[in-house]
Amino acid sequence: MKRVGVLLAGCGVFDGAEIHEAVLTLLAIEKNGAEAVCMAPNKPQFHVINHLTMEVADEERNVLVESARIARGNVRDLATIEAQELDALVVPGGFGAAKNFSGFAVEGPESEVDPEVRRLVEAMYEADKPIGLICISPAVGAQILGKTGVEVTIGTDADTAAAIESCGAVHINCGVTEIHTDTDRKVVSTPAYMLGQNVLEVSKGIEKLVQTVVEWIS
Amino acid sequence: MKRVGVLLAGCGVFDGAEIHEAVLTLLAIEKNGAEAVCMAPNKPQFHVINHLTMEVADEERNVLVESARIARGNVRDLATIEAQELDALVVPGGFGAAKNFSGFAVEGPESEVDPEVRRLVEAMYEADKPIGLICISPAVGAQILGKTGVEVTIGTDADTAAAIESCGAVHINCGVTEIHTDTDRKVVSTPAYMLGQNVLEVSKGIEKLVQTVVEWIS
Repeated sequence: MKRVGVLLAGCGVFDGAEIHEAVLTLLAIEKNGAEAVCMAPNKPQFHVINHLTMEVADEERNVLVESARIARGNVRDLATIEAQELDALVVPGGFGAAKNFSGFAVEGPESEVDPEVRRLVEAMYEADKPIGLICISPAVGAQILGKTGVEVTIGTDADTAAAIESCGAVHINCGVTEIHTDTDRKVVSTPAYMLGQNVLEVSKGIEKLVQTVVEWIS
Repeated sequence: MKRVGVLLAGCGVFDGAEIHEAVLTLLAIEKNGAEAVCMAPNKPQFHVINHLTMEVADEERNVLVESARIARGNVRDLATIEAQELDALVVPGGFGAAKNFSGFAVEGPESEVDPEVRRLVEAMYEADKPIGLICISPAVGAQILGKTGVEVTIGTDADTAAAIESCGAVHINCGVTEIHTDTDRKVVSTPAYMLGQNVLEVSKGIEKLVQTVVEWIS
């Protein structure tokens, strides 16, 4: 069975992985006859946001431990994952992707990328294995792979698009129910909740993204 | 637009709402052309479980605040919700349903039910509005509506089925991709992760459940 890594950034749109996007990714992987391998960095979250009040909470949470909520306990420490055991990698969005995988959300495109995230994404790319980037996660993808001139979506936000292009990546405008495929680099992306108004819209783009990723697995 | 309440018990299968079930419920509501109204009790969780180690964590979290993660902030205090503003109610599962909505998971069927959960479920039932119960939540439904002889699913677990029947409810064996409809009482249920081995299986039962709920709205 084809094994698709799913890189989670915690559990919740404002400080972790976007929950709808993550669950829809897992569902689409199974619909396409593949197996999901959930993983997350084992480190503290950048911060914790109270999702009711939007205030920063005086709490500490761990990215791997919170990601386990989405994965129903079945999640591995990213540091133990090698590209060899995966056929593809998908990265759901949520602010956590741009706060816990790198400092993109706060410090911008020149911020440091988590070394384990960088290691795995680079290894997947070098092994010519498909990578799917959802919502804001193409920003982190651009930080890592921008030097290749990779084409990615972010929706239509001009500032974010400019930040992505400053990494060397090429920003492609794309609707929420659509994907952009960079076939040469085997990178596919979709705006999801960067544009989406509801979960149904978001599901359409993610289904297309995951289908493409699985089809690309050679 | 038809308004379907979604009663959340937190965010995570072992101490809150089962995340996959909750997201699949929201998706199915939109697929059926209805609007989801997310709500949760504003009170401390029974406990917090580290979903990686399965240990009880020395933390306090609030059911409403954590439910806001699934609802992307768009969740209301259950105490402010009246049955008049809803056309139907769906309750996803997860241990949180049997820990935060009542004491079913720990103290069994004679445990106290949260008064706001009881109030809304009774009001929906008395108004002849459809109720959908997923996974373990039929146990709480049985605690509230058992005296009506309501028919519900729980999967195939004999102990849980016996506990439900001790409330006066009738337990119906049901596969994970199926539903049981108690047409007289407008209560529909599905076992979801009480039996489900993966999110694809669970999605099938939940889609049928939500479709039935929306069709029942007069």
